[in-house]
Amino acid sequence: MKNKTIKLKSRPVGMPLISDFITVEESLPEAGSGEILLKAIYISVDPYLRGKMSGTKDPRFELDKPIASKLIAEVVESKNEKFKKGDYVSGYLDWKEYQVSDGAGIQQVDAKAASLSAYLGVLGVTGLSAYFALLEIGKPKPGETLVVSGAAGAVGSIAGQIGKIMGCRVVGIAGTDEKKELLITKFGFDAAINYRTTLDIEVAIAASCPNGVDIYFDNVGGEISDAVISNMNKYGRIAVCGSISNYNDTEQALSPSLLPLVVYKFLTIQGFLIADFAEKFPEGIAQLSTWLNEGKLTYSETIIDGFTNLPKAFIGLFEGRNEGKMLVKI
Amino acid sequence: MKNKTIKLKSRPVGMPLISDFITVEESLPEAGSGEILLKAIYISVDPYLRGKMSGTKDPRFELDKPIASKLIAEVVESKNEKFKKGDYVSGYLDWKEYQVSDGAGIQQVDAKAASLSAYLGVLGVTGLSAYFALLEIGKPKPGETLVVSGAAGAVGSIAGQIGKIMGCRVVGIAGTDEKKELLITKFGFDAAINYRTTLDIEVAIAASCPNGVDIYFDNVGGEISDAVISNMNKYGRIAVCGSISNYNDTEQALSPSLLPLVVYKFLTIQGFLIADFAEKFPEGIAQLSTWLNEGKLTYSETIIDGFTNLPKAFIGLFEGRNEGKMLVKI
Repeated sequence: MKNKTIKLKSRPVGMPLISDFITVEESLPEAGSGEILLKAIYISVDPYLRGKMSGTKDPRFELDKPIASKLIAEVVESKNEKFKKGDYVSGYLDWKEYQVSDGAGIQQVDAKAASLSAYLGVLGVTGLSAYFALLEIGKPKPGETLVVSGAAGAVGSIAGQIGKIMGCRVVGIAGTDEKKELLITKFGFDAAINYRTTLDIEVAIAASCPNGVDIYFDNVGGEISDAVISNMNKYGRIAVCGSISNYNDTEQALSPSLLPLVVYKFLTIQGFLIADFAEKFPEGIAQLSTWLNEGKLTYSETIIDGFTNLPKAFIGLFEGRNEGKMLVKI
Repeated sequence: MKNKTIKLKSRPVGMPLISDFITVEESLPEAGSGEILLKAIYISVDPYLRGKMSGTKDPRFELDKPIASKLIAEVVESKNEKFKKGDYVSGYLDWKEYQVSDGAGIQQVDAKAASLSAYLGVLGVTGLSAYFALLEIGKPKPGETLVVSGAAGAVGSIAGQIGKIMGCRVVGIAGTDEKKELLITKFGFDAAINYRTTLDIEVAIAASCPNGVDIYFDNVGGEISDAVISNMNKYGRIAVCGSISNYNDTEQALSPSLLPLVVYKFLTIQGFLIADFAEKFPEGIAQLSTWLNEGKLTYSETIIDGFTNLPKAFIGLFEGRNEGKMLVKI
């Protein structure tokens, strides 16, 4: 039996191409003493992987080595006493159908408490990023206005809902009318803007935010962010969680200089690093689970079938092809 | 006896002009019951006044009304029991040779503890801005590298010295070779860069900061800031205390977009508002006085003589004509 793996063939320049990846067949590995054999079930594709491919984000992926991201896997053979056959686990693992692990960094997941895929989304890094970036950097107060870019995405849709739970007016920005509609009807945003069909995004934001913008949860960067930031109120907080509009740039984009606004409006702009909050993960997961069970939080997934579709799913992130968390089911 | 006052004649567009100001003579005011008559001794000119003139900074100055800034004055007549003739005071007051006040917002200053002018500089808003912006936003740790722009200016020269006291490597950026020399010899910076004679400021900063930049104390904005920020280390902190290169812009300047760097390097960029630290002013003044008396802190002043030279002194700030705090002696 052969085992497929996907390796980085060339570092993407600009938009990643299918040809930057290569699918290779290798022999099925065997679990040695203390090891487990894992069968991938869901593999997460995420925008931050782009930086690790081009080498701007550490640790970078090496050429001719497998890509890695967060996986949900089933233990199909165990020679490690901490795991037994049939367990479901999550971990930062290679893009392989089957792989062995010594169990380091591998967590058990409870398939009864939530759907397996939720552990890569709302109860995983995605949900925790939304939770900590909004609460710890955004510091939302009731009655304030929160704007979320990439609002129909995995992190954005959760950030917006948490903003509503915190009592904010929440305005989302997305790239299709369908997503705009979902923000209102499914995720309970107060207003939504389709930036692709809006003549003047800055004016549209001003119209949707009659009291200005107090908190900006940024997933996209670029012109959308420039427009939001020019609508910020004094003492505004900007949680920068992603900059997907820039990830494929081959040279540095130009924007209106932010620093004068930072001075005049006493803004705080902070890059979000999930690792800073590792100690609080259990608290975050508990709160997110509670909200899920109370029906205060809902989430979307876009699930692509088939291991070999991983590169296509990843590239789809930059084409706005996902609603919510993008996953590949093996 | 006539009393001179300087009023805002027109809102500056671009670089302020002498003709944006008008000197008017009016009759000498008289102190009523509960009031004091003040004679200006030193008047502070500061870059932030530019925003209040054009109306981008609140509260703005009104046309045909006096400009106001921080003054040191002598009480020449008192009908207020809290003050007596001969007292020296400081306060946010009009640009007038003489004026009356009911004493609200007026502080006594101790002419024996420090020179009168120091209360507009190192022991005033200038020193306190350097102190709180560096310590509270910059959070310097021993061994880290601090870069200060506008380093020979009033705030910058103090911020750099506090960085040295905190154990940082301190690199200053200034606009003349004379200032560059002063940064090293007078203020004890480890390295200095003259941005006007440097071919590539980004490369010069990299060369002066072999371990990268951990903290950037920004007084200037613009291309200098772009160059510093591109040299920031992960987890870098940027205290934005001024943006003098932009204050006279008539349209928004373009810069390389900051947001991708904020994401990749987990930067924090924060606008500094001295009012946020008002409760800690006594602590800050006490610490600054201690350092002054211990000889750990030195300061520069550029003192221009003559009330009617106030507009010229103010405009000089944007031409880099000051070394340290710019004051007008009446």
